[in-house]
Amino acid sequence: MAELPLAPLKRIAKNTGADRVSEEAVEELRDVVEDIAEDLAKDAVTATKHAGRVTVKKEDVDLVTR
Amino acid sequence: MAELPLAPLKRIAKNTGADRVSEEAVEELRDVVEDIAEDLAKDAVTATKHAGRVTVKKEDVDLVTR
Repeated sequence: MAELPLAPLKRIAKNTGADRVSEEAVEELRDVVEDIAEDLAKDAVTATKHAGRVTVKKEDVDLVTR
Repeated sequence: MAELPLAPLKRIAKNTGADRVSEEAVEELRDVVEDIAEDLAKDAVTATKHAGRVTVKKEDVDLVTR
């Protein structure tokens, strides 16, 4: 956990119209987004194995995020 | 777009069991995750305004990611 840095997530929030964003809000957004990224990555790895490969390719990510 | 760095997303993929991950796969995962982060941030800002505030708080993020 906590792989993703906070600064880019704060910029994303600012870019969507947030005047101010509390530190706790940015951390919460990071945690939620990171959980989603982990779930998607797990699904992509399953798709990779299903295809008989060991290298996760773009098509695996595309398959699980249609 | 392209706020989130690639290295942490590659680590997340590796941590979920990926032996190898193509550069294009990491970029795709980054793009998808960033789109989701933008959508969540937009929803959180809407919740912030709904509460009559200008500062996005953790409770706004929680409300839109229940």
